[in-house]
Amino acid sequence: MRLRNKPWAKDFINSHPKIVEQNPKAIRGAWKERFGIDQPLYVEVGTGKGRFVNELAKAENANIIGVEKYESVIISAVETAVNEPKDNLVFLQQDVTELTEFFAPNEIDRLYINFTDPWPKNRHAKRRLTHAGFLAKYEEVLKDGAEIHFKTDNQQLFEYSLESLTEYGFYVKNVSLDLHNSGMKNNIMTEYEQKFSSNGMRIYRLEARLHSKK
Amino acid sequence: MRLRNKPWAKDFINSHPKIVEQNPKAIRGAWKERFGIDQPLYVEVGTGKGRFVNELAKAENANIIGVEKYESVIISAVETAVNEPKDNLVFLQQDVTELTEFFAPNEIDRLYINFTDPWPKNRHAKRRLTHAGFLAKYEEVLKDGAEIHFKTDNQQLFEYSLESLTEYGFYVKNVSLDLHNSGMKNNIMTEYEQKFSSNGMRIYRLEARLHSKK
Ligand SMILES: C[S@@+](CC[C@H](N)C(=O)[O-])C[C@H]1O[C@@H](n2cnc3c(N)ncnc32)[C@H](O)[C@@H]1O
Ligand SMILES: C[S@@+](CC[C@H](N)C(=O)[O-])C[C@H]1O[C@@H](n2cnc3c(N)ncnc32)[C@H](O)[C@@H]1O
Repeated sequence: MRLRNKPWAKDFINSHPKIVEQNPKAIRGAWKERFGIDQPLYVEVGTGKGRFVNELAKAENANIIGVEKYESVIISAVETAVNEPKDNLVFLQQDVTELTEFFAPNEIDRLYINFTDPWPKNRHAKRRLTHAGFLAKYEEVLKDGAEIHFKTDNQQLFEYSLESLTEYGFYVKNVSLDLHNSGMKNNIMTEYEQKFSSNGMRIYRLEARLHSKK
Repeated sequence: MRLRNKPWAKDFINSHPKIVEQNPKAIRGAWKERFGIDQPLYVEVGTGKGRFVNELAKAENANIIGVEKYESVIISAVETAVNEPKDNLVFLQQDVTELTEFFAPNEIDRLYINFTDPWPKNRHAKRRLTHAGFLAKYEEVLKDGAEIHFKTDNQQLFEYSLESLTEYGFYVKNVSLDLHNSGMKNNIMTEYEQKFSSNGMRIYRLEARLHSKK
């Protein structure tokens, strides 16, 4: 708990430079070398407390990066990684708006967006991680044929994201309008997903892929 | 009621050639002339008992055509039209697979698909009115920028249709994952919609538009 106290959190993060990369711009285009193993790179944006990426790193033969802006939140993700070390998991305490400065074109094999903030007011639409402004950044760093995997409990955000993604030029696959009643196998739950699904709320999910890269 | 009796139904339909066009292939490309008024052409495929098109014809300054395969079903649609005559409503007792024989390229301004049969088995997917085979026909007859408006109560069919439409090259707009709790104005209910929504089932809706015609 005391780790949530700001000064301690910063010290704690700084004391784990292998788990939290302090200078991601310097690694741009060379994440394979940073991980030391040649396998696909999966990135989650808006990682929060990091349950999802910590589990994903155990389940997949892939290099995993979780991007989360807030120290006070990412600290929990780092704690879990410290307690259960994984060679294939790294965190960036960074803003997703700068994504293209951390990753080179075509460097990412899959992008995860889980339970991202819905920003319900229209005037905040640009902050939604499925807004066209973000999609353009994802397009740049995603490999040809790479997928975005998106989950949310928020009906309006899902409706918006379907529109935004397909208007941008993505098509959708494996759409589920009620994930937890769909028989999906091997679903890894995020913190928010555990909370909302236990309240009986529907979880929405889709995979999106570009028709072809420009 | 006696009209549902097959021989009577056929006679009844044949006795209203203005309402049920017997030779749509002859009108191909000339529906404006057939209606006698130059306004947009909206077509519903799988019209059923025709509540939707009968109401749509009253609500819209558009020429409306309902396409329904079965005599025993379309008869109700025709009865309503006979009792409440409309100059801008015509029915085709035809199979949607032949759509391109009744309409010329770019002739249709909007296509409606409402509560179409879900054909839940994979081996029947080709019969779904949102299967790529049908989308290709719609693309041919739809004007540039024309929309498909789609409603269903069936979650799996909606998921499938999102995938099929966007993979084909449509993008979606005005998606609603719970139409009757979305505050949508001027929604015209179909027979199936009245039945399912009164049972408390969610109604799904979307509008689809092609990125650009080939
Ligand atoms: C609602 S939480 C969900 C967390 C987690 N993905 C889950 O499903 O439990 C969204 C997280 O995304 C982070 N976030 C939102 N916008 C961000 C941005 N532009 N850059 C980095 N993180 C962001 C927020 O700080 C927050 O921790
Ligand atoms: C489930 S009902 C729905 C009727 C109406 N649209 C409603 O929402 O109440 C589907 C209708 O589509 C018709 N239909 C299905 N496939 C068709 C096809 N290929 N050509 C013409 N009609 C078809 C069926 O005969 C049936 O009447």
